Amino acid sequence: MAKPVLVEISARHVHVTEKDLETLFGSGYKLKNKKDLSQPGQFASEERVDVVGSKNKLANVSILGPVRTATQVEISATDARSIGIAAPIRESGHISGSGACKLVGPCGEVELAEGVIVAKRHIHMTPEDAEMYSIKDNQIVSVALNTAERSLVFGDVVARVNPNFKLAMHIDTDEANAASVPGSCIGEILD
Amino acid sequence: MAKPVLVEISARHVHVTEKDLETLFGSGYKLKNKKDLSQPGQFASEERVDVVGSKNKLANVSILGPVRTATQVEISATDARSIGIAAPIRESGHISGSGACKLVGPCGEVELAEGVIVAKRHIHMTPEDAEMYSIKDNQIVSVALNTAERSLVFGDVVARVNPNFKLAMHIDTDEANAASVPGSCIGEILD
Repeated sequence: MAKPVLVEISARHVHVTEKDLETLFGSGYKLKNKKDLSQPGQFASEERVDVVGSKNKLANVSILGPVRTATQVEISATDARSIGIAAPIRESGHISGSGACKLVGPCGEVELAEGVIVAKRHIHMTPEDAEMYSIKDNQIVSVALNTAERSLVFGDVVARVNPNFKLAMHIDTDEANAASVPGSCIGEILD
Repeated sequence: MAKPVLVEISARHVHVTEKDLETLFGSGYKLKNKKDLSQPGQFASEERVDVVGSKNKLANVSILGPVRTATQVEISATDARSIGIAAPIRESGHISGSGACKLVGPCGEVELAEGVIVAKRHIHMTPEDAEMYSIKDNQIVSVALNTAERSLVFGDVVARVNPNFKLAMHIDTDEANAASVPGSCIGEILD
């Protein structure tokens, strides 16, 4: 059975706790929804911060909402090298011992001892998608992208199954460029 | 038969004509060999130039020697986007209608109407390598990289056969980051 999946590019972004949001933007501050994302309830906010590493900074990085229980910065390996951060490849939420940085907002700064990761490529699926595709939560799969000029097959793609998700694969900008993905594309999950 | 190939990362770089070298560094200037590269006769020079796009610049980009018959800039798609250049994916030397930029050296500037490319991933082979691997010049092959965390199979890899080459696959920094290649690695050409 063919197992198509929408492949979306996840650009560098930041998730913040309510506490860190208040430090960066002021007491009582709330994120403003600029644009809904493909995953239900998630949105790109109007707010942006600078991510500062040991060598340089990434200016005006988008904060995604809603607020979370841990502040997390997701950048590409190219970004990490360019600003001087040792960021490991991790699943979202697995930030123990990950990279350090400073976040700078209009009202204050937050020093993160950990939280900077290069996101492990992954597929969001509902339990229904997972059953239809015969894939289990946390299963590692491969996904073929038949793009022009730079077709490839991504291995080490982790499937994440949750009723709050919507079927989509997320790759970072390095991965998108390596496959020459034009905005988004349809990939094929391989058996 | 197993068909291993050394995979090397080709960082952003510039090739220059003798004329453009003189414009950038002064009359009669010669490139200084800083380090030999894997391909016979090719070297990283001491000289560096700024590559200027419509939005920003890449500072201190390495010039590779020896001088060539056409000036060519090879950058990643990440680089191209960051400095505002529309650079197509091309084989080296195929620069007709490719991206424009300005090169800035210590003694002068060169406006390039074309010459900026994102290099098509490729394998350098001698005729003996090609015969042993049953691959022809310009054949498109796939190469598997069994790296930790980000294994993948690159499609659309062009084989280039020339007696002056040495067996090696070249990928750019986006591709290396998408595969999490640690400096270099051994890939496997697939049938």
